[in-house]
Amino acid sequence: MPDTNTTTKRGLVSYGPYNTGGWKLQNLTPRPLQQRELLVEIVASGICQTDLHFAGTESGFGVHYPRIMGHEGAGYVREVSPGTQGAKPGDAVILSFSACKSCEPCHRGHPAHCFNFNAINFDVVPENYTFKEERSNEADGYNIYGKFFGQSSFSSWSIVREDSVINVSDIVHTREELQLLSPLGCGIQTGTGVIINAGNATPEDRVVVLGLGGVGLSAVMGAKVAGCKQIIGIDRHESRLELAKELGATDVVKVNGLENTAAITEAVRGMTRGLGANITLDTTGVPALIAEGTRMTGFKGKIMQVGTAPEGTTLSIPIHEFMVTGKQFMGVVEGDVNPQEYIPRMIQWVKDGRLPLEKIVKFYPAEKFERAIGDMQSGQTIKPVILW
Amino acid sequence: MPDTNTTTKRGLVSYGPYNTGGWKLQNLTPRPLQQRELLVEIVASGICQTDLHFAGTESGFGVHYPRIMGHEGAGYVREVSPGTQGAKPGDAVILSFSACKSCEPCHRGHPAHCFNFNAINFDVVPENYTFKEERSNEADGYNIYGKFFGQSSFSSWSIVREDSVINVSDIVHTREELQLLSPLGCGIQTGTGVIINAGNATPEDRVVVLGLGGVGLSAVMGAKVAGCKQIIGIDRHESRLELAKELGATDVVKVNGLENTAAITEAVRGMTRGLGANITLDTTGVPALIAEGTRMTGFKGKIMQVGTAPEGTTLSIPIHEFMVTGKQFMGVVEGDVNPQEYIPRMIQWVKDGRLPLEKIVKFYPAEKFERAIGDMQSGQTIKPVILW
Repeated sequence: MPDTNTTTKRGLVSYGPYNTGGWKLQNLTPRPLQQRELLVEIVASGICQTDLHFAGTESGFGVHYPRIMGHEGAGYVREVSPGTQGAKPGDAVILSFSACKSCEPCHRGHPAHCFNFNAINFDVVPENYTFKEERSNEADGYNIYGKFFGQSSFSSWSIVREDSVINVSDIVHTREELQLLSPLGCGIQTGTGVIINAGNATPEDRVVVLGLGGVGLSAVMGAKVAGCKQIIGIDRHESRLELAKELGATDVVKVNGLENTAAITEAVRGMTRGLGANITLDTTGVPALIAEGTRMTGFKGKIMQVGTAPEGTTLSIPIHEFMVTGKQFMGVVEGDVNPQEYIPRMIQWVKDGRLPLEKIVKFYPAEKFERAIGDMQSGQTIKPVILW
Repeated sequence: MPDTNTTTKRGLVSYGPYNTGGWKLQNLTPRPLQQRELLVEIVASGICQTDLHFAGTESGFGVHYPRIMGHEGAGYVREVSPGTQGAKPGDAVILSFSACKSCEPCHRGHPAHCFNFNAINFDVVPENYTFKEERSNEADGYNIYGKFFGQSSFSSWSIVREDSVINVSDIVHTREELQLLSPLGCGIQTGTGVIINAGNATPEDRVVVLGLGGVGLSAVMGAKVAGCKQIIGIDRHESRLELAKELGATDVVKVNGLENTAAITEAVRGMTRGLGANITLDTTGVPALIAEGTRMTGFKGKIMQVGTAPEGTTLSIPIHEFMVTGKQFMGVVEGDVNPQEYIPRMIQWVKDGRLPLEKIVKFYPAEKFERAIGDMQSGQTIKPVILW
């Protein structure tokens, strides 16, 4: 085991919005552990749009500088605070969001809809100061926030909340496996979980996925795992449509801007012999596409919303038509899964070749984080993963 | 068995809108049976707002004069056409809606959301001419529409679609029982079914019911059957609030008009320690109340819509808030039940005293149909049942 006190530790610190050059890779020192915390040597961390959302503006809800982002981490436990449950030094872990475990949704098996989700995962309190720059004086104290999604995994070593840890020691045996599996804790579980878990998809279902980024393509893979008889992928990038087909989409629709969104519904209706979708997933958060999603959904169909729509935007639902057709509109976070149970299931699908992560993941050394983010934004890479 | 050819047969014929005096009780002759039809001696039929909806205006979708309304009938089979399944002469039957049994929702167990529901239950074709006035000449032919909801049970004898028949001979043994059970096939199954079946209510749930007519009070009884820990009834009539408490409501909220609907949400929030409802049912169809319903619903809560809202009205859903909270809005018809399975379950609850129909049902002889309707409209009677 490495000596945690002497190993050089690095992190990608967000001092301000990414677009204004506010993110910097530097050496760091984590503070001593407090209760229910683990020190984890991070081996890899996926990058997700949410990292850029919460460190992409000067201010706003959940925006706190300087902070370490990263919420799709995986690694090895190196230290635990006394009394911490679930993992011990040496264990391989995948990290996910944290939840309070004491509110009603947590008790009823819906930790992603925890009352305290925002406060725990995005907001900060003094104990979230988990790092300082390596060369700071002791007197300067710890002044860089961590614990983003309970983990702040854009760092080679990080202090992690006990609730964010999924112990996978029994099923993951190599560092290479752990690198590939690191993004399971957010984007992949959101996409597969919303179809398999929240949507209860069956082989009888026709599924439409609006937007084929990391979440959307995971949804395509999830629909394939569920054996859905028709899987229709919709995006503006030709390359993503091709990848969707490779991952299980039976049909695709190319979108050209938002001027004629009705044409998308028309295409879906045509592909489904007029029946529409049984499950329509929006991953875009674009209100015009969400509204179209309700129209391309058939009788007793579910419209599932996981894309982050701008605050304050609304969806207009025709009340009588929804009643007659028995449609459902539902908001879903993180696939409404319990990561403790669901991540091991996904790992089994990866091992069985049913969730071919390697087709969407691309690795980048931490120093190349700007290239990783640029490739994600251009659509060239679906799921960039930083290696530490 | 009575001689069906000589027994006097009567029906309540809608020649025009009810409010303009268009409904008349008169003697009738049913036509000979065609394929998949049964001649049923109706013993009782509940009255529901939907009867007044479809024979309350001069014209509109599903409005066809002259016609026999009535869709909560029960009676004894007197004749069946050759090859008809499910019941034989002498069998006690409860009648419900019809469905095509061949479309996707029907195949998937959702006959109330049948593609052809409107066409089958409301619209007419020449074969729906099932009656003529007793004194008409043979040459006049059959000119009064029947088969409203497959049954047109506002008549002492009616021609019923095979799909509308639930054979209860094994479990219902007296004419009096059958009279009490007659409204099970629509209003009661809608109210109890939306909570128990579509809503999957559990003892852990806090349920809010907006509107305490026949459907709403049935929902209260359904929530009680499901053992829900809190049942909040909301209405403007004091007498209905009292009845709701008798039927299982743990709390009630009296509404005074639609000027300050936010106060309803505030009251529900207060009664639920700020948590809101897990299941909110709207039976009113009033858009302002439906919108309020979404706000009084808590994390992972379901808003279920069964009240008929005016065509073209919409509900504005805050997209981001629905996602974070994991709320669901769903339209439901007839509790999304399969009456063949569900009506026998309700009958058992009635026998066990868990569904005390006698507290909402009031019987009226057919001649007093105007008084029955008047008492329903004034709120004095929750579920008027016409006896034939």
